Amino acid sequence: MAISFTVTVRDPGSHARAGTITTERGEVRTPAFLPIGTMGTVKGVWPTQLKEMGYQCVLANTYHLYLRPGHERIRRLGGLHRFMGWDRPVLTDSGGYQVFSLSSLRSVSDDEVTFRSHIDGSRHVLSPELAVEVQEALGSDIRMVLDECVEYPAGRREVEEAVRRTAVWARRSLAVSRREEGGLFGIVQGGMVPEFRKRSAEEICALPFAGFAIGGVSVGEGKQLLRETVEFTAPLLPAGKPRYLMGVGTPEDILFAVSRGVDIFDCVLPTRNARTGMLFTSAGPVSIKQARYADDPRPPDERCDCPTCLTFSRAYLRHLYLQKEILSSMALTVHNLHFYRQWMERIREAISIGYLADFVKESPGLRGE
Amino acid sequence: MAISFTVTVRDPGSHARAGTITTERGEVRTPAFLPIGTMGTVKGVWPTQLKEMGYQCVLANTYHLYLRPGHERIRRLGGLHRFMGWDRPVLTDSGGYQVFSLSSLRSVSDDEVTFRSHIDGSRHVLSPELAVEVQEALGSDIRMVLDECVEYPAGRREVEEAVRRTAVWARRSLAVSRREEGGLFGIVQGGMVPEFRKRSAEEICALPFAGFAIGGVSVGEGKQLLRETVEFTAPLLPAGKPRYLMGVGTPEDILFAVSRGVDIFDCVLPTRNARTGMLFTSAGPVSIKQARYADDPRPPDERCDCPTCLTFSRAYLRHLYLQKEILSSMALTVHNLHFYRQWMERIREAISIGYLADFVKESPGLRGE
Repeated sequence: MAISFTVTVRDPGSHARAGTITTERGEVRTPAFLPIGTMGTVKGVWPTQLKEMGYQCVLANTYHLYLRPGHERIRRLGGLHRFMGWDRPVLTDSGGYQVFSLSSLRSVSDDEVTFRSHIDGSRHVLSPELAVEVQEALGSDIRMVLDECVEYPAGRREVEEAVRRTAVWARRSLAVSRREEGGLFGIVQGGMVPEFRKRSAEEICALPFAGFAIGGVSVGEGKQLLRETVEFTAPLLPAGKPRYLMGVGTPEDILFAVSRGVDIFDCVLPTRNARTGMLFTSAGPVSIKQARYADDPRPPDERCDCPTCLTFSRAYLRHLYLQKEILSSMALTVHNLHFYRQWMERIREAISIGYLADFVKESPGLRGE
Repeated sequence: MAISFTVTVRDPGSHARAGTITTERGEVRTPAFLPIGTMGTVKGVWPTQLKEMGYQCVLANTYHLYLRPGHERIRRLGGLHRFMGWDRPVLTDSGGYQVFSLSSLRSVSDDEVTFRSHIDGSRHVLSPELAVEVQEALGSDIRMVLDECVEYPAGRREVEEAVRRTAVWARRSLAVSRREEGGLFGIVQGGMVPEFRKRSAEEICALPFAGFAIGGVSVGEGKQLLRETVEFTAPLLPAGKPRYLMGVGTPEDILFAVSRGVDIFDCVLPTRNARTGMLFTSAGPVSIKQARYADDPRPPDERCDCPTCLTFSRAYLRHLYLQKEILSSMALTVHNLHFYRQWMERIREAISIGYLADFVKESPGLRGE
């Protein structure tokens, strides 16, 4: 079945809305944050732990799974959900972002992208059609079209060309997509140029996608430009379809984008930062390796009830981090994902009581910026 | 309170017995296998997972915790149990084995051992008294005396000297031990020389320890010599106290030693092998990285009901291992610890129905060796 989207509450003081995406494998309450499971695993946690934390959807990277272990292999093994032991919805990206950022890019034409693997230098060709095919082999519930993601900064001509090509590819993706099998999302490009964002939104949103993403952000443009782009672009996307801001972001950036009407987010921050010893807490970031925590018996976040905070002290977590113990990544990841889950819950609650605009004003990271 | 030991069942056809060690922090059913928590964490698992698997006691390494983060720090933080989030019994070794194997050993005298840290080369002095003091600071429930563990092979004079010194140190350890705070175990040395094993057992077992260990094995002597030494030494230890075979071993070696009357075991095998991709299964060892598992949809062990086997295929676990994903170590460790726990349960059951001798005969690894 294709996915559907229902907006259940709108915040009176902002563009924020709360709703539900319904997929064959269950519902995803929005605004939603998706943990990153690059290689078919959210690093450092069991699938059961993600469920216990309340996560309803994770993201997996098509580029990585295409290279290792291969989408045909995953199809033969019963699809990505069975492969990774996760029976709730999965969103896959198209691989485009990684091709344009990670690999040695050889050439891009209207037909396809030719690139070399960042692992072994092997040559591969990715086309809009193949990106759809790979994601259908994986069996993900939400799928993304192949788009051309330009670097930041980029010249006007480069951005304009990416907008044009992204639209061409979007139509080709739709043409080959088996829509009953999962929701295909279009992606709006346009760099940081309002004119091109507008053009891209018009072209992409005219097509019958199940949802729409703002791509080409979180590429080093900085908080100010990111927010301007979100503020400008989000209202251009259809109100009746889910809006997805790719690769964003900090709790504050997520809250900002929600207030502008965005519904879905993904980001490596909670998981990657966990592995480098950084904790999100109600009192701000904590870098657990600091000497000041060597004798600190307190939990990382005294207002948190996650398994890590209920079990371990800062002193112990610092010890684990310094000793490169596996449990360090495990425990910090659980805490950070718990923090993000709670943050999204607070956002949904604020929307449900019509309080989101005030919540934005009260959030320190958003005031005075 | 000191620990106590009750033998509840004896196997009629062997020297095996089943019983219970009672400590302030709960009971430990014997024969027991203790997972290794070197740095105050069993690598790759949450304390809650160890509990769910049914483990009642873990081992932590005094040498490592003395160096990092330091026993005084752990004492200030409320002791090792609180530090590592584990409220069941903990056994600590004396640090002797690591001093004699890991560190740059500078000198050993009857007074003390002077060594350099394997981490930073810093100079340290370990004495029998300090080994007790460190373990009391950690607050472990079962503690080991400092002994002199000789290499294999070793000359007669070297072994004899280690036996003499181990006895001197054992008396000094007892003299400073606060016995109400945890059970101090003596350690029998003697290399692979029956004459010296006998002498060491006579000297050590004459002292009022809470239990007795066979040390100086699993040092490269091979299966045959290990078993001969266990067979010879175990009956020399008091029948009314727990017998602990240090650093052993494979499931088959454990079963053999149980049949000779040993009650406690510890070994890195299930946890370390997990991190190098080796699984213990009912059909024998599985090296998960092998290409033959690339498309294998079966669980690692079709007769196992651990979370890993219930959730993941060999193909997925191979993928995780090759990609160096954290979940690889996590999932394989859970499986291997589950396997060891089940193995110990089968052993205890066999004893309880008087079937242990037959169980030994039926175990393939023990036949014809």
